[in-house]
Amino acid sequence: MKETVGNMLAIDKLIVAIDEKKNATMAGLDTQVAHLPEGFVGADAPDAEVAAAIGEYNKKVIEAIHDIVPAVKIQIAYYEMYGLEGMKAYKETLDHARKHGLIVCTDAKRNDIGATAAAYAKAYLNPNSQFYSDFLTLNGYLGLDGIQPFIDEGERSGSGVFVLVKTSNPSGGDLQDKLIDGREAFYHMGQLVHEWGRQAMGTHGYSSVGAVVGATYAEQGLSLRAQMPHTFFLVPGYGAQGGTGEDIKKLYDSEGRGLVVNASRTLLTAHQQNKSVGYAEAIRAEALRMRADIAPNQSR
Amino acid sequence: MKETVGNMLAIDKLIVAIDEKKNATMAGLDTQVAHLPEGFVGADAPDAEVAAAIGEYNKKVIEAIHDIVPAVKIQIAYYEMYGLEGMKAYKETLDHARKHGLIVCTDAKRNDIGATAAAYAKAYLNPNSQFYSDFLTLNGYLGLDGIQPFIDEGERSGSGVFVLVKTSNPSGGDLQDKLIDGREAFYHMGQLVHEWGRQAMGTHGYSSVGAVVGATYAEQGLSLRAQMPHTFFLVPGYGAQGGTGEDIKKLYDSEGRGLVVNASRTLLTAHQQNKSVGYAEAIRAEALRMRADIAPNQSR
Repeated sequence: MKETVGNMLAIDKLIVAIDEKKNATMAGLDTQVAHLPEGFVGADAPDAEVAAAIGEYNKKVIEAIHDIVPAVKIQIAYYEMYGLEGMKAYKETLDHARKHGLIVCTDAKRNDIGATAAAYAKAYLNPNSQFYSDFLTLNGYLGLDGIQPFIDEGERSGSGVFVLVKTSNPSGGDLQDKLIDGREAFYHMGQLVHEWGRQAMGTHGYSSVGAVVGATYAEQGLSLRAQMPHTFFLVPGYGAQGGTGEDIKKLYDSEGRGLVVNASRTLLTAHQQNKSVGYAEAIRAEALRMRADIAPNQSR
Repeated sequence: MKETVGNMLAIDKLIVAIDEKKNATMAGLDTQVAHLPEGFVGADAPDAEVAAAIGEYNKKVIEAIHDIVPAVKIQIAYYEMYGLEGMKAYKETLDHARKHGLIVCTDAKRNDIGATAAAYAKAYLNPNSQFYSDFLTLNGYLGLDGIQPFIDEGERSGSGVFVLVKTSNPSGGDLQDKLIDGREAFYHMGQLVHEWGRQAMGTHGYSSVGAVVGATYAEQGLSLRAQMPHTFFLVPGYGAQGGTGEDIKKLYDSEGRGLVVNASRTLLTAHQQNKSVGYAEAIRAEALRMRADIAPNQSR
């Protein structure tokens, strides 16, 4: 068990924040121009203006939900697509979320080896970096060489990672479902993640090395839950992609812990579904609905 | 066979440029502060200055080799680690390389699904993007959903991708070497890449969907070469990582084509090995040495 000096590990902070807010939601800021309420940006605005407007909308979303949601996940692709102005909007979103007490995960699915992996780790998990995040998502196809530099950086900063195991998309099985010694490739990836995480255990029974396990494959998720008792799950696929509250509830551990659920589109576009109130109110109402929908049957 | 209107596919441009310069080198701009010659940046310079100095050094490297090397590969991790100033140095490096007639590959190993993959594709393969590159590296663990949006964007812009198949690092086998139906997982990934590439064939017998195949596993590379006759290889691992010119020569097709070889450290630090001349001259000499070392026995 490790505790960085004067600082809890991000995984322990996340568990405590979920307990306090009674909410395992990680709100996804995968913000696209089509999500913006009227008045944020003109129809033919240049990219730089669109990027700035997305950053401004994110701030409003954060302000609308920061007291009821423990964490946000920023999908960096939607910022990279706007170049330097996009990266600035990403950074400002990150800063605003942290200022409002939210735990921040950058969803970047980075992967590389050796010195290059260490450079990515410095970019996202080092407190002196502009892009410093509590968590970063990773792709483990390159093996331990591609993961260890992030664990090492996390040992210094307290940050954690989530490694892709079973993704929520229809073709996720192209490689992940192929059988190796009678079990699908993603189980082997899960086993690797489980082993990699042993060196980075927090004080609440979970490791700083978490796993991405899609809500859309409920049975496989259950099986992985049993196989990886000390691995915290980041669960995408809830809502728009088809995963339900019932799917989620089965994945909690016996204390109602062990995972965080990402939802993005349903939150960001709540104002398009519910036009009876202002956009901030609509987002907040959707966040409260989701909190109730995914609440564990057990009490935390 | 596809040809974008008024524009060759990047894969065809790359093949022609390699033929013209008789050089299959893709020079790696994985530039780190330790690579900089004296006088580029002070020892205790803040990150923003270091990032700018790295950008300036890259420009000098490009100017030193642009007439003898067909392409450069920019490893984006070394720029992300310096935040917004780092991304600016990345963009300026990219622009400078293109201005000097070089084909540019961004080594970002991006991976995601659906709309998110499309956002990454827009970021790196759309000509209107600040980060527009001729090629982008990808990680295929998420299956076709994670690749198709890049192929679609490439169909419009002519850009291509290189998908990780067999990586050059020691633990690359953690998952990649596990057996599926009696063959290693990376062969299955190779098979997927081969199939994905059928829809994006260029005019020189190779697809816009290439593969990353490390030079450090020569036998596996040979086997993949036979398995994937229409897949162009990006071969890392030459030089500092242990791959040799002899390893490379075995991987060419019967016409001496079919691959591009990345070297980074040996080029960027050539001035530290050869102090008898200026840094630009030392880099150029190393580029010429490498061109001879990896030249195919067959003529192109």
